[in-house]
Amino acid sequence: VSAPYITFLSDYGYLDEFVGVCHGVIARRCPGALVIEITHAIPRHDIRTGALVLADALAFMPSAVHLAVVDPDVGAVGERARRAVAIRTAADDRLLVGPDNGLLMAAVKRFGGVAEAVEVSRSRERLEPVSRTFHGRDIFAPVAAALAAGEPLANVGEELDVKELRPLELPVARVSDGTLTTHVLRADHFGNLILDASAAQLAETGLQADAAVSVEVSGRVFRARYCLTFADVARGELLLYADSTRTAAIAVNHGSAAEHLGVMRDQELLVRAA
Amino acid sequence: VSAPYITFLSDYGYLDEFVGVCHGVIARRCPGALVIEITHAIPRHDIRTGALVLADALAFMPSAVHLAVVDPDVGAVGERARRAVAIRTAADDRLLVGPDNGLLMAAVKRFGGVAEAVEVSRSRERLEPVSRTFHGRDIFAPVAAALAAGEPLANVGEELDVKELRPLELPVARVSDGTLTTHVLRADHFGNLILDASAAQLAETGLQADAAVSVEVSGRVFRARYCLTFADVARGELLLYADSTRTAAIAVNHGSAAEHLGVMRDQELLVRAA
Amino acid sequence: VSAPYITFLSDYGYLDEFVGVCHGVIARRCPGALVIEITHAIPRHDIRTGALVLADALAFMPSAVHLAVVDPDVGAVGERARRAVAIRTAADDRLLVGPDNGLLMAAVKRFGGVAEAVEVSRSRERLEPVSRTFHGRDIFAPVAAALAAGEPLANVGEELDVKELRPLELPVARVSDGTLTTHVLRADHFGNLILDASAAQLAETGLQADAAVSVEVSGRVFRARYCLTFADVARGELLLYADSTRTAAIAVNHGSAAEHLGVMRDQELLVRAA
Repeated sequence: VSAPYITFLSDYGYLDEFVGVCHGVIARRCPGALVIEITHAIPRHDIRTGALVLADALAFMPSAVHLAVVDPDVGAVGERARRAVAIRTAADDRLLVGPDNGLLMAAVKRFGGVAEAVEVSRSRERLEPVSRTFHGRDIFAPVAAALAAGEPLANVGEELDVKELRPLELPVARVSDGTLTTHVLRADHFGNLILDASAAQLAETGLQADAAVSVEVSGRVFRARYCLTFADVARGELLLYADSTRTAAIAVNHGSAAEHLGVMRDQELLVRAA
Repeated sequence: VSAPYITFLSDYGYLDEFVGVCHGVIARRCPGALVIEITHAIPRHDIRTGALVLADALAFMPSAVHLAVVDPDVGAVGERARRAVAIRTAADDRLLVGPDNGLLMAAVKRFGGVAEAVEVSRSRERLEPVSRTFHGRDIFAPVAAALAAGEPLANVGEELDVKELRPLELPVARVSDGTLTTHVLRADHFGNLILDASAAQLAETGLQADAAVSVEVSGRVFRARYCLTFADVARGELLLYADSTRTAAIAVNHGSAAEHLGVMRDQELLVRAA
Repeated sequence: VSAPYITFLSDYGYLDEFVGVCHGVIARRCPGALVIEITHAIPRHDIRTGALVLADALAFMPSAVHLAVVDPDVGAVGERARRAVAIRTAADDRLLVGPDNGLLMAAVKRFGGVAEAVEVSRSRERLEPVSRTFHGRDIFAPVAAALAAGEPLANVGEELDVKELRPLELPVARVSDGTLTTHVLRADHFGNLILDASAAQLAETGLQADAAVSVEVSGRVFRARYCLTFADVARGELLLYADSTRTAAIAVNHGSAAEHLGVMRDQELLVRAA
């Protein structure tokens, strides 16, 4: 059998040594662990994007401890303090470690929900003194490494009622009378808009491959084409498609749909055959 | 013996989770494989730069499966469709996996040409459903991982006639009567111009170390110095040198030769003693 | 026991294949070695920042060979030539490999100073021909890999008198009559100013948590707050704090202290209760 895997996602970026230092902490606690960097370029403090990228990526990850850190409230005290948690999922026994701010919850949902959760802020695995600003190093990495080294979940924290976990708030798409009411979940680095609708909901709307569709945003109507790939429309034209994770998305071929439509996160779009 | 190595080069960049997801796919198919990132900053869709960087880097890589993805025609159908291939080289038994668009062929040439090639578009190793946009995840990474895990080449695809492989088109430098006729292969991130001439061809031209040379571009003549390193000329001056891969290059000390000479890829330069 | 670890820090950046090629060289000499990237985003040629980041990071790294390359004088000859060295520390038997320009010396100091040092420029481990520009590939990586593979220090170079090692020049903070005289060591990517004072020296100055402090720079006086974390002051306000490595630092919440104070490296700051 191979060494245990840890996957790692964060908004730490690549300009500083934050990621490298977490690797050092992992290597000290779980020598030989293999770390897969999912990405460290989640937009700073963007919990939702982190949660969605994590959930989509996990389908392709091996059995592992999944460490994730997007943590705008690190070090906050009192009312704004957030928990630090480790979670075991109901399906596939995935272990996830990170802040209890919704970041882990889209992935947890994909794996059948929570089987067991512990609060790890005062874990015996933490590095003392715990800093106010770098819980990735002081709490999350050592807890993830301990789990990868085989520690049972119950040993790295205090039992937590599942109902106390903070959910990830997301809009919900719906189909009615051939109209898909959908919302912008996030924009990627190219300005493509990821929606809250699935490929199945696109089909349910009755759209035909290569058909013209209308996209209505705040009363303005745009023409787009429902197709398989960017090359199916001319440069500058709008397309509606299912991306490589089977999620509905809107893009402009060689352009930015975010700019073209002038939309923001959570904005509602009405999509129907044109 | 250590775990198998896979090297990975692409134009995926570091802003998205594409590279990380390919790592996950590799870990699932070949647990414990060690992945060396050659670079993921190949300019987007720049097959030639990818091919040249890959060929130069491979001389320093261990025995491995070499995964490379620069794939502007991913998902194209009909006439524009390109094959997906895996190749074993005649020398040193290197295995290369990637699109059949020339990307692998400079490296293949360095290792004695093709010993065996297979088409892997419908490989039994592929992840279904194969997306239109992310063959790195769905075809190339799983095939590379299967080879690293010990699958014979014949098991991961259909036999392919070597003559059907698409070559990499490159200009060819020549020396005649003390004049080197050479061409710009690519510019690096500093604006240094990598040429198609070798250090041996520079010597054949009769240039002496530290000599003044003339560089003629489209009728304009520039003065340069043939020397060993940037520090041998003043700031802003042009130098001709053999780079760390023994390839001829032109640079401006603390500047950009690409801007200074105003040249583009494939442009012809005439180099001789001044 | 796990495979040996090598940590790697440089100013090579992520745009080129330099880091990847060094990984290949390591894998050939020490198959299975696990490499931890501390960071490759040290500002180009900034030896001091490299030295300080390395020293801070090493406290969190496992027992390893620590490879570091920030090397503005690579390839220089004659008077400007610098040595290439490998060092064993007095405490904890850490092995460090890099240019002898001060880069390694802050880390060496943290681990009790030098126990043994060798000059490796002509190491039998080097890759011939050694290039003028890429000693990371040709000297430092193969020497680090040889050490990780178990070669004794004496086998990879020629013995060197400790007194010949080039020191890292740093300013020195002092506390007198309730005034801390401190200096800017470096700015991080956010414009936070890292000082040469420790958390202990801040305490020695008699500052109280949450107290107002004055910061005098070249005769100009700024008001700041001595506190634990950014959230303790309003946006745009100046704070003095101990960072996650227990080093004194000055920042502006959601801003740049470097711009706000208009200071440069090594500039003197006088800090006292306001």
